[in-house]
Amino acid sequence: MKLVDLAKKLGGALEGDAEIEIRAVAGLKEAGEGDVTFLSNPKYVAHVAETKASAIIVPISWESSAPCALIRVENSDQAFALAGELFYEAPPTPPQGVHPTAVVDASATLGEGVSVGAHCVIEAGVVIGNNSVISAQCHLAYKTTVGENCFFYPLVSVREFAQIGNRVIIHNGAVIGSDGFGYAVQKDGTRTKIPQLGIVVLEDDVEVGANVTIDRARFGKTKIGKGTKIDNLVHIAHNVIVGEDSVLCGQVGIAGSSTLGSHVILAGQCGISGHLTIHDGAIVGAQAGVMKDIPEKDFVMGSPAMPHMLAKKAMANMILLPKLKDRVKQLEARLSELEKEKDN
Amino acid sequence: MKLVDLAKKLGGALEGDAEIEIRAVAGLKEAGEGDVTFLSNPKYVAHVAETKASAIIVPISWESSAPCALIRVENSDQAFALAGELFYEAPPTPPQGVHPTAVVDASATLGEGVSVGAHCVIEAGVVIGNNSVISAQCHLAYKTTVGENCFFYPLVSVREFAQIGNRVIIHNGAVIGSDGFGYAVQKDGTRTKIPQLGIVVLEDDVEVGANVTIDRARFGKTKIGKGTKIDNLVHIAHNVIVGEDSVLCGQVGIAGSSTLGSHVILAGQCGISGHLTIHDGAIVGAQAGVMKDIPEKDFVMGSPAMPHMLAKKAMANMILLPKLKDRVKQLEARLSELEKEKDN
Amino acid sequence: MKLVDLAKKLGGALEGDAEIEIRAVAGLKEAGEGDVTFLSNPKYVAHVAETKASAIIVPISWESSAPCALIRVENSDQAFALAGELFYEAPPTPPQGVHPTAVVDASATLGEGVSVGAHCVIEAGVVIGNNSVISAQCHLAYKTTVGENCFFYPLVSVREFAQIGNRVIIHNGAVIGSDGFGYAVQKDGTRTKIPQLGIVVLEDDVEVGANVTIDRARFGKTKIGKGTKIDNLVHIAHNVIVGEDSVLCGQVGIAGSSTLGSHVILAGQCGISGHLTIHDGAIVGAQAGVMKDIPEKDFVMGSPAMPHMLAKKAMANMILLPKLKDRVKQLEARLSELEKEKDN
Repeated sequence: MKLVDLAKKLGGALEGDAEIEIRAVAGLKEAGEGDVTFLSNPKYVAHVAETKASAIIVPISWESSAPCALIRVENSDQAFALAGELFYEAPPTPPQGVHPTAVVDASATLGEGVSVGAHCVIEAGVVIGNNSVISAQCHLAYKTTVGENCFFYPLVSVREFAQIGNRVIIHNGAVIGSDGFGYAVQKDGTRTKIPQLGIVVLEDDVEVGANVTIDRARFGKTKIGKGTKIDNLVHIAHNVIVGEDSVLCGQVGIAGSSTLGSHVILAGQCGISGHLTIHDGAIVGAQAGVMKDIPEKDFVMGSPAMPHMLAKKAMANMILLPKLKDRVKQLEARLSELEKEKDN
Repeated sequence: MKLVDLAKKLGGALEGDAEIEIRAVAGLKEAGEGDVTFLSNPKYVAHVAETKASAIIVPISWESSAPCALIRVENSDQAFALAGELFYEAPPTPPQGVHPTAVVDASATLGEGVSVGAHCVIEAGVVIGNNSVISAQCHLAYKTTVGENCFFYPLVSVREFAQIGNRVIIHNGAVIGSDGFGYAVQKDGTRTKIPQLGIVVLEDDVEVGANVTIDRARFGKTKIGKGTKIDNLVHIAHNVIVGEDSVLCGQVGIAGSSTLGSHVILAGQCGISGHLTIHDGAIVGAQAGVMKDIPEKDFVMGSPAMPHMLAKKAMANMILLPKLKDRVKQLEARLSELEKEKDN
Repeated sequence: MKLVDLAKKLGGALEGDAEIEIRAVAGLKEAGEGDVTFLSNPKYVAHVAETKASAIIVPISWESSAPCALIRVENSDQAFALAGELFYEAPPTPPQGVHPTAVVDASATLGEGVSVGAHCVIEAGVVIGNNSVISAQCHLAYKTTVGENCFFYPLVSVREFAQIGNRVIIHNGAVIGSDGFGYAVQKDGTRTKIPQLGIVVLEDDVEVGANVTIDRARFGKTKIGKGTKIDNLVHIAHNVIVGEDSVLCGQVGIAGSSTLGSHVILAGQCGISGHLTIHDGAIVGAQAGVMKDIPEKDFVMGSPAMPHMLAKKAMANMILLPKLKDRVKQLEARLSELEKEKDN
């Protein structure tokens, strides 16, 4: 696409050679000839001078020069996103119907427009809603139900009786409904398995990342509320309840029977102990270890987690400890001096 | 089932409408009409008043009222577990024999009653003991041996030569026997792979969670002892030895060549450095980072891990640091005052 | 193999019964009759007396006795590695060609000597270079390209447009190219998915561990540089760039758009926040939480991460806090005493 045409489509003002052929979008550092890049985050201003892109999308207010053509726009982030979509070649839509190598039980019910990929296994009693895509090599166990317009990527597995809503996206390798981790300790120190008889419920518009594991409940439901988004390699234990529109970042772990409210944010690698309540709108910092309930809209950090202002102060003081030790040492010397003089 | 019949089966005393039809079990908060719920953990007493269950199983000693029928029993946790089993509809038993789509090498030896699911791949020299279930889409590589009465869920993969005992359960997506992470650094800073020629041994009654990874040994064995239970997304590196009846909670990581004794408990997200010994009965707190050997039955916390009493004290003091700083400041002021007076 | 023959092959000096039959290698603790073991790490000297091996490889300088035959060598670690290879029975080489159960699109291009295992799915436009092995049950999505001499273990999945270099090894269950975790928050608090239109690039000689997840870029590339090695269960978010010959240990997490240089080492379970730069040769300690850029060759520890000397000092001081508190208390008492005397 000629740069002048791109600028027009983005509603931007072009400065530079209108005839340059743009073929792709790329980040400031990665961009090369034929790429259009963008500046949005002020942190990256210094990188503009070094970009090898053929053109850059900048805010209207941009005052410095650039080593390539410019497109000035109101919102450079949005304009770049639009450019990205203009240059994107989408992969083909998965074909409707059941691939001949898929093994689909005769008692399964498939809606209209459903796609079941190669080497899938769909067990007895499964129900899949209209226009849902079950990509290759997925496994849907006995009597799982999947709503409409879902998209399961390859190698997803769902254990028996799981209930999955509409427009749910599940990425490769995720496991929905594995057994909860529950054992009864015997007198001789061995453990016997506690049957895990409950299910997993994923409500509408949930997205589950790659290689995530969500355990079924001991009884009842492990439930992920409407619109909640889960990043890769997250572990959600049995009987956890997550509210609506919450966000669980990469490698988060939630122990058994904890309840999260709505609009909760768990940053990467944090952990939530069992049987806790994390109230609506709470935010948990990266790597925090939560051992207590968190009130509504609180922001906690640290392991063990504490209110983030306290955690920051504690951390700052910890770094100042050597100075404090010196001050105590000086006090001791001065006091000894005084005491000596008094004795004389 | 009528409530009166349920109470009889649980050996409990009914208070309320004997004719209520109960259809399922559920937690206090999730329960609705037709559900029976229970109170066992005193933490949840306050939730009883709000339950929407049709009946609740309580300890004999329960003195408050409830918004639904009651069944009093000696052990409400056990009675609820029994109720759960009464209402549970189990999925069908996997069919014996080899699914026609499975690819099983002619040299593999399958015991009596073995089930091999759709799209499995069983390589040459594999041996599977009587009554073991290899669910759909699993991969057993060259000369792996699996004992009797094992249950592998879908999409489990086991690398060559692994030795798996009896009654071992492996959940979806777990990887047994991937290469250890070992490289020799060359003079130019590149790394060459050190061959990982050992195996993984899982002894009897081990359970392995979903998407767990257990690396094969460089030489010899990575071994998980009899009865040890491993939760989801745990990482066990090459040449790790775990004793009997130990418990590894979600997202734990153990670096290469460390040895764990028996009855060890590793809480969620903790990490064990390489070449350490964690002795029998040791307990490691959640998110702890273990850098030293742990003596028998010690309980450590923190990162780096220390004895848990010390860790708690250090943590408490850290929070009190601002006060300590104030006290030092006051001391300095008072001392200056004294010194000034002395000079006068 | 007779022990005398093994000693000859290792270029070592034998002390003990030349005729012993050796069948395998094993670690000091695990070895039994018929095994040869070794001592290299001085930490394990005490275990020599208890080994049940039939022979042990020791450094020439070894002065103590051993409960079995000895082979003295210059480098016991290397000699043991060689012994390991002598006794190793390799699994069969994967057969060339496409397994009849694999589903390979007619438009895919397979080089010479390529092996595609049972139940694989190779979508349209995929290109696989000469002598690469795609083991059973893998999924290569639309227009992914794989170089020469790669080895993908079973159940690996690669999303559309990924570009994979030569000699790349990917272990079971790894996911290459899952969607980045990006959403736009709407006024009503719900989130809409930001299309993830970029790709993943793995350069030559990269190795990716079991159940690792590497997200595709929002635009452009998530890129892992030549020779970088990634351990199990690592999470790499969208638009992350990793340089050459870096090492990412087990369960590490890297948030979106961070850049790592070359020869960077991330120890187990550490986390890197988004939009950071970790410069060449930096080392991040286990479980560290990196919130700031790291200069070249710096070594950081702790969460939040700080220079490792500072972290060690802060940690040591934290443990000494109770003593410091006592000293302040004594100062207060002594000072009160002085003040009282002055008033009298």
